[in-house]
Amino acid sequence: METLRQRWQRIIFGTDTPAGQLFDVILIIAILGSVVAVMLDSVSSLRSAYGATFYVLEWFFTLLFTLEYMVRLWVSERPLRYARSFFGIVDLLSIIPTYLSLFIPGSNYLLTIRALRVLRVFRVMKLAKFMGEANQLGIALIRTRRKIAIFMFSVFVVIIIFGSLMYVVEGPHNGFTSIPRSIYWAIVTITTVGYGDISPQTPFGQLIASMAMITGYAIIAVPTGIVTAEISAARVSMRYERECPGCHRHNHDPDARFCLQCGTELPKLSLKGED
Amino acid sequence: METLRQRWQRIIFGTDTPAGQLFDVILIIAILGSVVAVMLDSVSSLRSAYGATFYVLEWFFTLLFTLEYMVRLWVSERPLRYARSFFGIVDLLSIIPTYLSLFIPGSNYLLTIRALRVLRVFRVMKLAKFMGEANQLGIALIRTRRKIAIFMFSVFVVIIIFGSLMYVVEGPHNGFTSIPRSIYWAIVTITTVGYGDISPQTPFGQLIASMAMITGYAIIAVPTGIVTAEISAARVSMRYERECPGCHRHNHDPDARFCLQCGTELPKLSLKGED
Amino acid sequence: METLRQRWQRIIFGTDTPAGQLFDVILIIAILGSVVAVMLDSVSSLRSAYGATFYVLEWFFTLLFTLEYMVRLWVSERPLRYARSFFGIVDLLSIIPTYLSLFIPGSNYLLTIRALRVLRVFRVMKLAKFMGEANQLGIALIRTRRKIAIFMFSVFVVIIIFGSLMYVVEGPHNGFTSIPRSIYWAIVTITTVGYGDISPQTPFGQLIASMAMITGYAIIAVPTGIVTAEISAARVSMRYERECPGCHRHNHDPDARFCLQCGTELPKLSLKGED
Amino acid sequence: METLRQRWQRIIFGTDTPAGQLFDVILIIAILGSVVAVMLDSVSSLRSAYGATFYVLEWFFTLLFTLEYMVRLWVSERPLRYARSFFGIVDLLSIIPTYLSLFIPGSNYLLTIRALRVLRVFRVMKLAKFMGEANQLGIALIRTRRKIAIFMFSVFVVIIIFGSLMYVVEGPHNGFTSIPRSIYWAIVTITTVGYGDISPQTPFGQLIASMAMITGYAIIAVPTGIVTAEISAARVSMRYERECPGCHRHNHDPDARFCLQCGTELPKLSLKGED
Repeated sequence: METLRQRWQRIIFGTDTPAGQLFDVILIIAILGSVVAVMLDSVSSLRSAYGATFYVLEWFFTLLFTLEYMVRLWVSERPLRYARSFFGIVDLLSIIPTYLSLFIPGSNYLLTIRALRVLRVFRVMKLAKFMGEANQLGIALIRTRRKIAIFMFSVFVVIIIFGSLMYVVEGPHNGFTSIPRSIYWAIVTITTVGYGDISPQTPFGQLIASMAMITGYAIIAVPTGIVTAEISAARVSMRYERECPGCHRHNHDPDARFCLQCGTELPKLSLKGED
Repeated sequence: METLRQRWQRIIFGTDTPAGQLFDVILIIAILGSVVAVMLDSVSSLRSAYGATFYVLEWFFTLLFTLEYMVRLWVSERPLRYARSFFGIVDLLSIIPTYLSLFIPGSNYLLTIRALRVLRVFRVMKLAKFMGEANQLGIALIRTRRKIAIFMFSVFVVIIIFGSLMYVVEGPHNGFTSIPRSIYWAIVTITTVGYGDISPQTPFGQLIASMAMITGYAIIAVPTGIVTAEISAARVSMRYERECPGCHRHNHDPDARFCLQCGTELPKLSLKGED
Repeated sequence: METLRQRWQRIIFGTDTPAGQLFDVILIIAILGSVVAVMLDSVSSLRSAYGATFYVLEWFFTLLFTLEYMVRLWVSERPLRYARSFFGIVDLLSIIPTYLSLFIPGSNYLLTIRALRVLRVFRVMKLAKFMGEANQLGIALIRTRRKIAIFMFSVFVVIIIFGSLMYVVEGPHNGFTSIPRSIYWAIVTITTVGYGDISPQTPFGQLIASMAMITGYAIIAVPTGIVTAEISAARVSMRYERECPGCHRHNHDPDARFCLQCGTELPKLSLKGED
Repeated sequence: METLRQRWQRIIFGTDTPAGQLFDVILIIAILGSVVAVMLDSVSSLRSAYGATFYVLEWFFTLLFTLEYMVRLWVSERPLRYARSFFGIVDLLSIIPTYLSLFIPGSNYLLTIRALRVLRVFRVMKLAKFMGEANQLGIALIRTRRKIAIFMFSVFVVIIIFGSLMYVVEGPHNGFTSIPRSIYWAIVTITTVGYGDISPQTPFGQLIASMAMITGYAIIAVPTGIVTAEISAARVSMRYERECPGCHRHNHDPDARFCLQCGTELPKLSLKGED
């Protein structure tokens, strides 16, 4: 006989049973509904008209998600591991702001962090195809982390130097009132965002700004090159790593379901990581 | 003996006969002419001078395209399939706005959707070379649809969170009047467009904005990497898939016309998809 | 005995003789000097101070380049072919504006087209290394011309539709005064330039603008992918196409000077194209 | 017996001994501290409150780094080579501004060039993994220098021509007051930064600006393609160049520590270049 805890375990963590799938679908609808409610509540014309409704909705969803969080802790085999996992922390952060808003007004708008919970949607679509694609992307991005770190570190040094240079050249009269603010300008420029809220006025400042822009324009090639090379490599390695349990042939597509040599069913790809 | 219906079928759908090619060329000139007329009609100085001419032109082209649409339905073997195809819907949308403008003034400016019809130009240039290139691009982009979907989904979640954060940090006094508007700001920033119509004023807001910019600047590498890896792979697979009917050799260039081993003429590449 | 014509031929078209190299170096200095003079002449404070000097310099360089153009025509084996080549047209355009400025004031500022002449610098550096690199880039970019054309064509259609949509949604009161101007806005947005001189004011307009931005942000991946795949392929094919005249081994680096198998000197890479 | 010079040599240049590692860690903290102090000093509200403290800190760090620079010169086997190396020049530039500020007020804000010294951090993390990654990136970027030079050179010519064209078309009344300023606008536009401080007002100017934007949007694909192709190639060549001293097998991962065929320990990757 199944206990109540086992039953809820099956509903919450199971994705193959009808009850588990229904739970996931309802959960995602509730998350989307609560995020939309928080967004609309921030529009002043809507808040003055439906403020009370939004208030009730916010507490309704918060209590619902609080209950869900406690059930997850209760049914989890290793509650601490869940609580410290990515989704465990997101689940907690998704309910805290409402309680905080009793003390700090306005903090309830941070409830949109609930949007992160929607990423569970990939779990609902736990099809081999999506898993394979997500895995490929994940492997590629994790492998680039050191190269990207070296790149970002070097870019920050360049940004600090351009920012200080502009502070000295343009001075506080043209909007570059401090080095931190000049660094903000350098980030706006090198990332090619270019708000134009601060822009150089002197010819020499425009010359340095031009160099910053060309730097920003050219170096975007570096992270793109790093990620592209890894994604290309991940494509190849993913294919290679799938081995047929029958004939031990490698080199199957991520979305292949049967061995292309002997027809044996291939093991499903499992998403590495928690949840 | 050819019936009238067969004859028009040959003119409208044929691309190898002189009559079919002439029809296509006239059609594209008419489409371009009608789009230019709608554009110029929107310039107030031109409308006050030539308003009547534009009005006549608009109805002339609309009636012409209405007639063409009905003929297409009539000669098509499977009219419903044409009506539901991409170009069938575009053809319909290209005539509706004029009729709508009798009831809703201004809707006739949506006639520029006719520009989509110009994409038929690739049909006129039904040369092996263009077909091969378009096929390669198409295959590559269709294969990336799941990875791009995962990426776009994650980017939207990041945009929602940055938008809400800025709403809480900057507040309505600095232009961030609601979460939807802050999300608009986050999209402007993360895509590196950077209008500057809304920009952070407080140091802490500028710090978060800087993080959003660097995020936007760095993650463009991901879709680029995905698409590049697929285009590289599509190049290889396209070459491989072309098989010589004579000696069964694979691996021919998309624009090769004869087998490079035995000289047999290769079958033409056919564009997959409707029309 | 060498005739005068042969001598000048050697000086102007030769790059291996001391006289030919000296000619090229003097030419590039003259080009740079004349471009800088035109630029500085446009700064009003400098023109009021040194206007006469700039005027003399402009005519001096123009007469010099006119003389050079005529000598080139005279010594060229096939004068018409030179006159119609890329550099022949640039050479002519580099002298016309000064003569035109006698009739149309201001047209002399177009003399900066002379900057294009500086591209001859790659001829001076006619070293195997630079030739190989330029060749690789050239081959890759020429091969992508059809794919890039298909892409640009589709982007223009998207830009026209977004522009018209915004004209209808935002209307003339918010800066979208005509469809051509809305199309200008769409180009500013989709290329992620984002001046902010025209920006959507209504929530619905901001929604459509957001879609345009995300479109622009995502589709940059397509031309990048096309070019990258070709450059990767050009690297490989360039290596393959270099054949050793001794042992007929293929697969040499673009900057290799000797066959890596038998040590025979490899033929130099020649830049395809006129000049 | 170790002399004092040998001892300091070991501390400053050694990275494997505890004393050497401690020195590196203290150095990096000192660099970060001094950069933050210079930044905060530039914020006027903080300077009026803690001006004296910042002044003392600046001189303290400058004297400390001056001492360090002299010790480096003293213990270096070849002092001149150190003085002319990248880090030697950075070390000198990191102390000069303070002394200069005695004569030229404001020049001390250039002390943020000290941020460049933080790049030594990669030396502290002299782990095989980071070394391999940095090496791969370095090899790839050095190999692209000629192609990138050709590209940047061509882009500059395009920028000069677009700038002059806009000066002639828009004229000084719309912000394009001189060709150098128009070239600044062209750089802002082609790099897709788009401040909006100068923007075209006439329809014809907007047409040319649109062409500049599309040019800038499309050509970013070229450096990205160049760098990506090289990074992909560097990945392969790096793997190939690592040879096992035991069985002479090639093709090891940059972060592999043992030969994957015979288990012999692989030689560490050494970062080429000074320091």
